[in-house]
Amino acid sequence: MDFTPSPKAQEYLQRVRAFMAEQIAPVEEGHLRELLALPPDERWRVFPLIEELKGKARAAGLWNLFLPDPHEGAGLSNVEYAPIAEVMGRSFIAAEVFNCNAPDTGNMEVLHQFGTPEQKERWLRPLLDGEIRSAFCMTEPEVASSDATNMAATATLDGDEVVLNGRKWFSTGVGHPRCDVILFMGLTDPTAHRHRQHSIVLVPKDAPGVTVERMLPVMGRLDEPSGHGEVSFRDVRLPASSIVLGPGRGFEIGQSRLGPGRVHHCMRLIGAAEMALEMACRRGTERVAFGKPLINLGGNRERIADARIAIEQARLLVLYTAWLLDTQGVLGALSQVSQIKVAVPLMAQQVIDMAMQLHGGAGLTDDHPLAAAWTMARAIRLADGPDEVHRGVVARLELAPYGIRR
Amino acid sequence: MDFTPSPKAQEYLQRVRAFMAEQIAPVEEGHLRELLALPPDERWRVFPLIEELKGKARAAGLWNLFLPDPHEGAGLSNVEYAPIAEVMGRSFIAAEVFNCNAPDTGNMEVLHQFGTPEQKERWLRPLLDGEIRSAFCMTEPEVASSDATNMAATATLDGDEVVLNGRKWFSTGVGHPRCDVILFMGLTDPTAHRHRQHSIVLVPKDAPGVTVERMLPVMGRLDEPSGHGEVSFRDVRLPASSIVLGPGRGFEIGQSRLGPGRVHHCMRLIGAAEMALEMACRRGTERVAFGKPLINLGGNRERIADARIAIEQARLLVLYTAWLLDTQGVLGALSQVSQIKVAVPLMAQQVIDMAMQLHGGAGLTDDHPLAAAWTMARAIRLADGPDEVHRGVVARLELAPYGIRR
Amino acid sequence: MDFTPSPKAQEYLQRVRAFMAEQIAPVEEGHLRELLALPPDERWRVFPLIEELKGKARAAGLWNLFLPDPHEGAGLSNVEYAPIAEVMGRSFIAAEVFNCNAPDTGNMEVLHQFGTPEQKERWLRPLLDGEIRSAFCMTEPEVASSDATNMAATATLDGDEVVLNGRKWFSTGVGHPRCDVILFMGLTDPTAHRHRQHSIVLVPKDAPGVTVERMLPVMGRLDEPSGHGEVSFRDVRLPASSIVLGPGRGFEIGQSRLGPGRVHHCMRLIGAAEMALEMACRRGTERVAFGKPLINLGGNRERIADARIAIEQARLLVLYTAWLLDTQGVLGALSQVSQIKVAVPLMAQQVIDMAMQLHGGAGLTDDHPLAAAWTMARAIRLADGPDEVHRGVVARLELAPYGIRR
Amino acid sequence: MDFTPSPKAQEYLQRVRAFMAEQIAPVEEGHLRELLALPPDERWRVFPLIEELKGKARAAGLWNLFLPDPHEGAGLSNVEYAPIAEVMGRSFIAAEVFNCNAPDTGNMEVLHQFGTPEQKERWLRPLLDGEIRSAFCMTEPEVASSDATNMAATATLDGDEVVLNGRKWFSTGVGHPRCDVILFMGLTDPTAHRHRQHSIVLVPKDAPGVTVERMLPVMGRLDEPSGHGEVSFRDVRLPASSIVLGPGRGFEIGQSRLGPGRVHHCMRLIGAAEMALEMACRRGTERVAFGKPLINLGGNRERIADARIAIEQARLLVLYTAWLLDTQGVLGALSQVSQIKVAVPLMAQQVIDMAMQLHGGAGLTDDHPLAAAWTMARAIRLADGPDEVHRGVVARLELAPYGIRR
Repeated sequence: MDFTPSPKAQEYLQRVRAFMAEQIAPVEEGHLRELLALPPDERWRVFPLIEELKGKARAAGLWNLFLPDPHEGAGLSNVEYAPIAEVMGRSFIAAEVFNCNAPDTGNMEVLHQFGTPEQKERWLRPLLDGEIRSAFCMTEPEVASSDATNMAATATLDGDEVVLNGRKWFSTGVGHPRCDVILFMGLTDPTAHRHRQHSIVLVPKDAPGVTVERMLPVMGRLDEPSGHGEVSFRDVRLPASSIVLGPGRGFEIGQSRLGPGRVHHCMRLIGAAEMALEMACRRGTERVAFGKPLINLGGNRERIADARIAIEQARLLVLYTAWLLDTQGVLGALSQVSQIKVAVPLMAQQVIDMAMQLHGGAGLTDDHPLAAAWTMARAIRLADGPDEVHRGVVARLELAPYGIRR
Repeated sequence: MDFTPSPKAQEYLQRVRAFMAEQIAPVEEGHLRELLALPPDERWRVFPLIEELKGKARAAGLWNLFLPDPHEGAGLSNVEYAPIAEVMGRSFIAAEVFNCNAPDTGNMEVLHQFGTPEQKERWLRPLLDGEIRSAFCMTEPEVASSDATNMAATATLDGDEVVLNGRKWFSTGVGHPRCDVILFMGLTDPTAHRHRQHSIVLVPKDAPGVTVERMLPVMGRLDEPSGHGEVSFRDVRLPASSIVLGPGRGFEIGQSRLGPGRVHHCMRLIGAAEMALEMACRRGTERVAFGKPLINLGGNRERIADARIAIEQARLLVLYTAWLLDTQGVLGALSQVSQIKVAVPLMAQQVIDMAMQLHGGAGLTDDHPLAAAWTMARAIRLADGPDEVHRGVVARLELAPYGIRR
Repeated sequence: MDFTPSPKAQEYLQRVRAFMAEQIAPVEEGHLRELLALPPDERWRVFPLIEELKGKARAAGLWNLFLPDPHEGAGLSNVEYAPIAEVMGRSFIAAEVFNCNAPDTGNMEVLHQFGTPEQKERWLRPLLDGEIRSAFCMTEPEVASSDATNMAATATLDGDEVVLNGRKWFSTGVGHPRCDVILFMGLTDPTAHRHRQHSIVLVPKDAPGVTVERMLPVMGRLDEPSGHGEVSFRDVRLPASSIVLGPGRGFEIGQSRLGPGRVHHCMRLIGAAEMALEMACRRGTERVAFGKPLINLGGNRERIADARIAIEQARLLVLYTAWLLDTQGVLGALSQVSQIKVAVPLMAQQVIDMAMQLHGGAGLTDDHPLAAAWTMARAIRLADGPDEVHRGVVARLELAPYGIRR
Repeated sequence: MDFTPSPKAQEYLQRVRAFMAEQIAPVEEGHLRELLALPPDERWRVFPLIEELKGKARAAGLWNLFLPDPHEGAGLSNVEYAPIAEVMGRSFIAAEVFNCNAPDTGNMEVLHQFGTPEQKERWLRPLLDGEIRSAFCMTEPEVASSDATNMAATATLDGDEVVLNGRKWFSTGVGHPRCDVILFMGLTDPTAHRHRQHSIVLVPKDAPGVTVERMLPVMGRLDEPSGHGEVSFRDVRLPASSIVLGPGRGFEIGQSRLGPGRVHHCMRLIGAAEMALEMACRRGTERVAFGKPLINLGGNRERIADARIAIEQARLLVLYTAWLLDTQGVLGALSQVSQIKVAVPLMAQQVIDMAMQLHGGAGLTDDHPLAAAWTMARAIRLADGPDEVHRGVVARLELAPYGIRR
């Protein structure tokens, strides 16, 4: 057992850290302030600063690092990439700068792994080049989407074509002006085996019948310029070649996509929690009340300790999960992938809440990144399946040897 | 010991409930939707609907119920008013409609109790009539305001005048177009006994030198049209007669104001928690996943039970505190006032978080009142002193018999 | 709403307090030390000290206070008796001294309410006089007794006789040398309505076929001299007149017994928690480490505050439940009775755990009453139905208006 | 980063598991039952069964595995031994059988590292051979021992001799009939640097002036036949050569001893938690209530999931700490050693509490190992420094870069 990161992982980590310190940190706060100062309607735009940073990141070879492919990315394994994702999680813009932002990462993985040459040429290439963005339309407003069999949207075959109908929401990224492609999940054949009913279809965002009905506020935030949209599909007709891997393969694709995606989400949240802990330490040592630094009042030191302990445990669990994905594949990490999905967002929510509290009222404002980071952590407790569903998965796997079914 | 509310309390409660069901409930959601649909800059306005509802409430005799005064209010004691505040807490606009909104309530209490006839005529009368709004400027951005001795703003006597300087923030209500008066707390005499150093001054919002620098986002929300402002005071010069109760009496006034104000806050939060629990029950029974109503999945029923148990306990503690305030005054309820300030916002935050989770992504949007209610509960964990300060008060009083000091 | 106890309640409370301070407190620690110094086999005895104290309590008119009957008790309502039970909970022997110990209290209530003159003469009289003790045999080792329909023991009618078979455990009090009577619950008619299947039978402990198989350790303690036994019944044949209220009425009797019993348990635990909090304050102020009293280290003051807040809320909920039982009967307090059963033992367990921790290793020994009090609180989380069953009851009642069934 | 255990670690782990399954598991329950059936006074003895198992373990080469020394032990590093300690933690007797029981392990480490040849010959040899036992006398009843500077016991130099006075308690193992040697920590020179004041002295248990005053109950248990004693030292006069490493070196020795000891404790607790989780799964699937296996009622499945998640995180943190100890020494693992000391016993206490609850009343008895395992976890929250002291260490190290001192 050896907890030392590989030399390659260390080297990339160091370079990403340096890039963030030199290129991103000096400009991020100003950029976010400028963004929030814009009238809401004008925030959905491409920002030259971001494009410039993307160019620099790519030039520095810090591009698509999430992708295990050594040609397009850096050939990093999950356990090698994880600490890099953590560092990116300390910033609201770094993931995009390094072309490592969700849901593009997952979508690129899908296309890389399962796309036809044509699909790759049309969509994967510009995604890898950071020229376009993408969305993933799965969750629906009218049903409990935690149960995939509830899905009401359809992707019906009609000769050489596939016809999409339904309403999706929480389609992250769909508000971005460069979001050109949507991966749509719909029901194709309700009579097939339950893992063979759904298809994933590549939909140009400007296809007739596709309407972004509204952008959804999440705890009051629209998360411009990417946002989370409610999207309707009305008789959207596309060539059947738009289906990824063929009809009925949606579940299979979805499964393969989940492991690394959750590792990324969780590592970014660990980065956010780590940043919040640092901010709590700094604020707690700088501000004085009742003749003492805040940190020496009441239970504040214990809160710092508890946060440190929680972060350390969470990080190790995610790294272990990443290593399992690398060495045993998705099926060998099913429980752990759900474990981190439960443990990490909750931990991050709590650590950030603690840091907000130590900042007093200021912690609730946008003068600090805490409030926005909290919202992100809270939202991820629901994204990709709510905590409760993942606890159910962990329990099911735990109880399997005892021959029990719900 | 008798937990039956007085007949008068019951009657008023019933009337407030009926008014809310008949007059407020049918229009609130539409009003809030309309408000949020406005461009942010245009939300800081007087809404005719609200004014109309205020007129109806006043005509119905449901006006200023928070004030124990039988002529201006209904002569309700704290324990009689508390359940009415709870009911108002189920709505974001009810408190204003009944002229029972913070910080106007506290400010009116101060003026009613300590104001000169001139002060009452100029500011209390229109406040009681719901014609103007007010703010309370105490917390400061540059210091840990949980320790009042940190206060940097000054209210310096200069002959017949008092001159204000300093910067305040989290001045709730200061964004409202009808906010005409500010109660400003500042340091007058640093050499006096530490409870005699500060003064409260009545400041016309349009006095020269008063500037609302910005409205503060709280977890991303500006809470228009009242909001929370950052306000600078630069050589604001006012007649010394603007000082409430005279120089150096600020602490004393502040103390008297806190008990009922915290009871109101807490009861409104209990109303919000109760509403969240109802929503959780409704959602949990209506939505289906994995072949069952959500409520019958995993630990959801236990969450409902735990929420019910937490709400019941919190409500009883607030009612008991209100009763202590009525029967023994502020000094007889010091510990309990701090106890509820710790217990209730935390309970509400947790219950509402649970309800959000049961709503899935929808719970995070503004399609439901949960996200905004959560933010309110979270913010109140810092308003009027952070949890940690109140825990300190409770501990100090608990340990007093053991002859210990920090 | 009036939180003042009735004059009668106050007077009795004061007298019980005085008796405990003057008669019990000076001798309890010595008595317990002496008890533990005995070889285990010799602890199951009648202690003259206890008998002497019982005589004094009875002489002082502080006898059977739990019983609402004004002739046998003091005619106290539940809400009047509750604070007295709390005070008794500060001692391990007080309940017995005042003839208010479980399960005798519940058993006396059953006989008082439902017994025939003969049953009362034979069993109730000496119980009321504190001459004998009793046990209640319901829970069984081989099944999940949280579901009463699992009960395997039988009380079969055979002509004029009833024949008992089965094995019970956690029969509290059965180890006491004066335990003369057992209330046995068994299945009489599996074909009847599910609330009409069981009977409660009065069994002389020395009846042929009754065997106390062993006394059960609870977290390592046998709780001598009363204890908790495992009892087998093998063809125990008794006249049918031993059945309380007639065959099939067991459920009905059981229900009536539960409300006050749970209030008593919970109030005693609140007394134990209150005592633990006092001990924590005392220890925390007396012991010094790192140059400060323990209480001023880390989060200890916040722990004191949190314990105070938790106790206050729990007490108010139990008092409210007692008042509901008094004014609306068991059916009007179903949810609350289950609420306190969940909330109070858990609260007590946590407060006592905190106090143990502040005592260092000493807190785990029998030099202080904390360890034993903790065990009592922990055990009550299972007695009379585990937490989870009561959460289920609370949820069921909460969800009833929404038309849902599990 | 590689989470695979070394081949050597895997091989030993497998052999220990096999030995436990084949040799210990079949007899442990009977042995414990027999032990508890003895009159308390007769439990302090050497049990032939244990001696026989020790012989078999030694013969199998599974002996002193805790010791990194390849001649006396197996040359396992901390991270290699840790999973073996976990497995031993599933049994109450395994640690002794493999000669890996505390405090002998720590005492052997001290002697191995710092002992003179004479000291090794006299005490280390028979300890390594499992022929004698030992105790460590540090904690004192009269002071808060969490602060080592509170220590009142003295080890005074007098010519060629050292004279010991004082009273110690929680001296684990001192009740064992083969406990022949005590490591006594006392104050030698109060004028020296605070890390140079104390000495550790090797004391024959039968030295004149040494008295085991009593064996301490821990949550009602005496943990025979080893137990935890209160020991007085009255003018115990020994040759100065009994001092380990020389006068004033006690602190230094103590420090070196703590890291591995805490890893062992924590890994054993993880084993106990893992066993409790398995028992919860088994019980939950076998028992039926309300027509379902217990595990499918209420929140029980979520409890299983939360336990699994908590155990995984805790284990990884301990393994990481062990690896840090191996690769960077005690000074490189200071924070982590304190982190595990906070996190693991608390986790174990909660997981075992959950398992007890799922077992109903049975979980509280000695029919299952849960109650005793719980007590062990609870006690370790105080042993080797209470949680609060370790949180203080973690916070201090975390805050060091911010230039703050308490």
